Amino acid sequence: MPLHLHPDRFFPVDPTMRSIARELFAGVEALPIVSPHGHTDPQWFADNAPFEDATSLFLWPDHYLLRMLYSQGVSLEALGLSPQGGKAETDRRAIWRLFARLYHLFRGTPSRLWLDHAFATVFGLDVRLEEATADRYYDVIAEALATEAFRPRALFRRFNIEVLATTEGALDPLAHHARLQKDWNGRVITTFRPDDVIDADKPDFARNVEELGRLTGENARTWHGYLKALENRRAFFRAHGATATDHGHATAATADLSRAECQLLFDRVLAGKDGAADAELFRAQMLTEMARMAADDGMTMQIHPGSFRNHNKELFAKFGPNIGADIPVRVDYTRALKPLLDRFGNRADLTIILFTLDETNYARELAPLAGHYPCLKLGPAWWFHDSPEGMLRFRRQVTETAGFANTVGFNDDTRAFFSIPARHDLARRIDAAYLAELVATHRLERDEAHELIGELAYSLPKAAYRL
Amino acid sequence: MPLHLHPDRFFPVDPTMRSIARELFAGVEALPIVSPHGHTDPQWFADNAPFEDATSLFLWPDHYLLRMLYSQGVSLEALGLSPQGGKAETDRRAIWRLFARLYHLFRGTPSRLWLDHAFATVFGLDVRLEEATADRYYDVIAEALATEAFRPRALFRRFNIEVLATTEGALDPLAHHARLQKDWNGRVITTFRPDDVIDADKPDFARNVEELGRLTGENARTWHGYLKALENRRAFFRAHGATATDHGHATAATADLSRAECQLLFDRVLAGKDGAADAELFRAQMLTEMARMAADDGMTMQIHPGSFRNHNKELFAKFGPNIGADIPVRVDYTRALKPLLDRFGNRADLTIILFTLDETNYARELAPLAGHYPCLKLGPAWWFHDSPEGMLRFRRQVTETAGFANTVGFNDDTRAFFSIPARHDLARRIDAAYLAELVATHRLERDEAHELIGELAYSLPKAAYRL
Amino acid sequence: MPLHLHPDRFFPVDPTMRSIARELFAGVEALPIVSPHGHTDPQWFADNAPFEDATSLFLWPDHYLLRMLYSQGVSLEALGLSPQGGKAETDRRAIWRLFARLYHLFRGTPSRLWLDHAFATVFGLDVRLEEATADRYYDVIAEALATEAFRPRALFRRFNIEVLATTEGALDPLAHHARLQKDWNGRVITTFRPDDVIDADKPDFARNVEELGRLTGENARTWHGYLKALENRRAFFRAHGATATDHGHATAATADLSRAECQLLFDRVLAGKDGAADAELFRAQMLTEMARMAADDGMTMQIHPGSFRNHNKELFAKFGPNIGADIPVRVDYTRALKPLLDRFGNRADLTIILFTLDETNYARELAPLAGHYPCLKLGPAWWFHDSPEGMLRFRRQVTETAGFANTVGFNDDTRAFFSIPARHDLARRIDAAYLAELVATHRLERDEAHELIGELAYSLPKAAYRL
Repeated sequence: MPLHLHPDRFFPVDPTMRSIARELFAGVEALPIVSPHGHTDPQWFADNAPFEDATSLFLWPDHYLLRMLYSQGVSLEALGLSPQGGKAETDRRAIWRLFARLYHLFRGTPSRLWLDHAFATVFGLDVRLEEATADRYYDVIAEALATEAFRPRALFRRFNIEVLATTEGALDPLAHHARLQKDWNGRVITTFRPDDVIDADKPDFARNVEELGRLTGENARTWHGYLKALENRRAFFRAHGATATDHGHATAATADLSRAECQLLFDRVLAGKDGAADAELFRAQMLTEMARMAADDGMTMQIHPGSFRNHNKELFAKFGPNIGADIPVRVDYTRALKPLLDRFGNRADLTIILFTLDETNYARELAPLAGHYPCLKLGPAWWFHDSPEGMLRFRRQVTETAGFANTVGFNDDTRAFFSIPARHDLARRIDAAYLAELVATHRLERDEAHELIGELAYSLPKAAYRL
Repeated sequence: MPLHLHPDRFFPVDPTMRSIARELFAGVEALPIVSPHGHTDPQWFADNAPFEDATSLFLWPDHYLLRMLYSQGVSLEALGLSPQGGKAETDRRAIWRLFARLYHLFRGTPSRLWLDHAFATVFGLDVRLEEATADRYYDVIAEALATEAFRPRALFRRFNIEVLATTEGALDPLAHHARLQKDWNGRVITTFRPDDVIDADKPDFARNVEELGRLTGENARTWHGYLKALENRRAFFRAHGATATDHGHATAATADLSRAECQLLFDRVLAGKDGAADAELFRAQMLTEMARMAADDGMTMQIHPGSFRNHNKELFAKFGPNIGADIPVRVDYTRALKPLLDRFGNRADLTIILFTLDETNYARELAPLAGHYPCLKLGPAWWFHDSPEGMLRFRRQVTETAGFANTVGFNDDTRAFFSIPARHDLARRIDAAYLAELVATHRLERDEAHELIGELAYSLPKAAYRL
Repeated sequence: MPLHLHPDRFFPVDPTMRSIARELFAGVEALPIVSPHGHTDPQWFADNAPFEDATSLFLWPDHYLLRMLYSQGVSLEALGLSPQGGKAETDRRAIWRLFARLYHLFRGTPSRLWLDHAFATVFGLDVRLEEATADRYYDVIAEALATEAFRPRALFRRFNIEVLATTEGALDPLAHHARLQKDWNGRVITTFRPDDVIDADKPDFARNVEELGRLTGENARTWHGYLKALENRRAFFRAHGATATDHGHATAATADLSRAECQLLFDRVLAGKDGAADAELFRAQMLTEMARMAADDGMTMQIHPGSFRNHNKELFAKFGPNIGADIPVRVDYTRALKPLLDRFGNRADLTIILFTLDETNYARELAPLAGHYPCLKLGPAWWFHDSPEGMLRFRRQVTETAGFANTVGFNDDTRAFFSIPARHDLARRIDAAYLAELVATHRLERDEAHELIGELAYSLPKAAYRL
């Protein structure tokens, strides 16, 4: 079957709306990509080594693909992932064939849309991926990847990326970013993600804090020294381009304890005596500390709460994290954020971007909060909601209360480098579709929609992330 | 840029549905406005003094406008609001210019739709509000407000309002309503809102109860006398036109304690020893008491739960309530209402109207409850959800289980007098849009839709509020 | 007024989408009905006696109808339902007239759509049900029901039902199914619903367990014997055609206790000393036990949580269950199911179908869970959500994460035999509408949509229920 990206894809079907959407999208289609939050590997750009093959490039790093195949009874071993002390399929072409045979499972999911976009626009493939075309795909991709034009830096240019943020843990030496700053003018920056040193539920928490002290020359065993060490580390990340921090806590809880309480709590969690309640309270306090530091050093703060990580006990034991077993849970914001907001909520010079996996908060809590507090902005539809329907739900449930200026444009949030153009293309098309509906129902004028689509695609992320 | 209200605004874009919507709307466009719940100031109509200027008329009383501007870093002082012991901008024209310059922030929000409707239809303005037209707006509005035709009573007639309910606290002397009853035949009625005397978390609760006793000649320090005093006060409100009560509790919790428990609980909360749990239990019990009184005196009862009032600690301290810092929280109804429903749920002569800020309850709890209990009806999409998308979500999530007859038409629920025609226009158009979709997808016949749009716009609110 | 089923009913209005939907639906319209979960009475088919009249056939068994009429102030007595020790209207024609006069209350609800379908297609009625046509309806229906062609078995053929599952309690002798197996080749199978013997909150729990022991010859007073008895009973049900079990617990909680803890817990709940917490823990443990047995015996397991049964205290006391007073409450899955999933989640040979009345879980918890765990699949939109909007919300919120293959097609889940064709017709049309939208927005190719509509209508339920 032929593979063809329709030029009107994702636009409304109604001819009036479609033509408005087309016109709006045309105004932003060629804008450079601003990718302020994601998980690509900086080493790709530092080394600029060729990517290897279709299987390792498309399948292995993509938890969306792994989870769906696994849900349908395909073992991770059959997909080439080696369990702790176990064996896995190593024939990458055979794995690719298996994937191709099951590609129909992704019908109706954004994975299919992203992959088809990469196949068609990056590799020029014009037939659909299925069992019969698996080898052709594998060969075309292998051949292309062996060329100079498919090296990471060349693709970065070809993808028209203006800035790409990666995400690193607080203890990361940022060696790749240091090299990139020296020998390339593509803008790949880091993001400060300190979960490993502020979440006492992480297995190596105490050791991580010790390492934090060592790296910064601070006595990180005292509350005071620990905070100094974190400030020091934030400065180190800023020196490597970071303009933002990111926090992936179990909930959005914040706290504002006295200094004495903080010291005692810190002692307890460091001693490993913490129960779940202490760890939660410590994370809560640390979000407020991070907000304070952000108010001081000007970094934008991102909060991504509400994922139950590594829900599948057996798979986690065998394969570790990031194989698709993270499942959202219900979260709240109005009460959870109050301690932090009581201290910093009215600071217009501070930017805290809230994300959610629990869409019930869009209209109920997030839009009212962001539509009031100067420090708050709303991140785009995240993860499972980064999809045509998910993005439309976000706009429809958020805009009427928070407007557009309290949102921050799109995040691709991906490890899948080749999907970045696809994801921005999709997001811009859905924004065009949404705005076209507002125009066609006379809730917005056409000139305003033109202005807004440019802000959503480009200006808002630049401003919110201070890029 | 021109300002123009499109005659097909808010209707579906599809030509088939649009033409049905147009036809349905035409049947109700000219119907008088029934406004059974809102927050306009009765003094306006009692005094019939001219309104002052654009800034004090449109901006200051509108928490939707204040919150959005504040969220984008504009101080309330710059908007002319004086903090406790502090100063504010006093140049109303300058404030209006600031608002005009930032009017683009309201794109995509209902505030924009309501304001444009008032600007165009009430003041005949035909250019968009922006920095360049700020003075023209200010002058046109000032000039108009100085004329007889723009006095409150004249506008009440011009807006084609059949009845307008205001909301007053239980201790209000209702002097304006008394004057209105004497010297005007426009129907402006009050609503009994006893939060100040039944919510023990209110700062002056004990003093309010004392005042309640004084006003009614009852010994309000005993449970029995307190209830008598409330009954007395309800009668006083009824004598001033009230047909309904309103209850803005933190949750929808109800209770049904024994008389002895009530007396002890009342003593505790009155003594100010109440913790949060006692206050919540007391509110819960009082909802059931209010239902009992409603079953006796025939007043319709409205419950508006789930707003975290005055969430912004600093702003509340400086500016007091109603500056846009109320944020919704999650609420439940099925379990919360059971004690009340166990006593009065099967009374078909009692009407309790439920509202929500937590849309997750529409399909899950509210529609099944209202679709079963004779005493329950559903209020329209409230507050942040009083918007095109919000109203459509309400209809789509409620109708299939509760039908239309268990809903009560539209409430404008506003302090913004000039927005009343705009809000009813919008609500009628959205109902027309929703019904048009049912007709065009052959879920409803055209003659039925004609009947229903009239009920939604006029008969249902009259019946539910006994107007 | 004429009654006419429009051939394009429930399809999108846009001509492009409508034509795609029409084409997709045409491919499945004539497929046999697979009804893997429902509540029809097996005695109908065993006895093959004629149905009596319109009132007893359409009104009395339909809790959707009873609840709506009751909500509008009609007493159940007036509808012919006798309260404990009380009287009710017995004139069935008079009751039918009352229903006809109030039939307008069902506008916008699926009940109206289902009934009109049955009236038009099964009885050939061509005028709308209203006061003026009540008698004509009553007579036409009575006349038809008296004929051979309207006997249950004849209608089963006429409705083109391939397989119909009923639901019986664990203690049911399955006499009707036994007769059916002997003397008819229509496939009516049972489903094992053991709530009465595993939910300690059921009033006769201990007596039921005793009866379970008696029926199976096991010592059901010991934990070991109790489990053996349940296994025995599952085998008995399988021998009567059952391929599935069903569990209607208050929550989705699961537990995985040690054998010693189980024995102690079982002793406590059997002794009737259990508080609510013990009963909940016991239900939680029993879901895990049922999963274990399902993994052993190959039965598909259905979980229908989150209904607050018999919410209306007074009606329950007077009329018992199933008169429309079940109201949903909020539920969670991610944390609730973990104990069960830790043990059986990775079994690809086990099928557990999850349902919900709390739609907030569709995108947040259910789609991510089913899109990862091999044992999990998602049941269709259930109960109050088995409606045009409800089914669309299900597809739109589930598909992007879980795809189609992790869903199981449609369940009619009804006691209303005559509505079965209507419900499958509606479900197939809505699936066609949803797929048409994907095709028209270029998220799916047309050939894929054709394949998928067949899976949704026929293959997926056959596979998931092992039919």
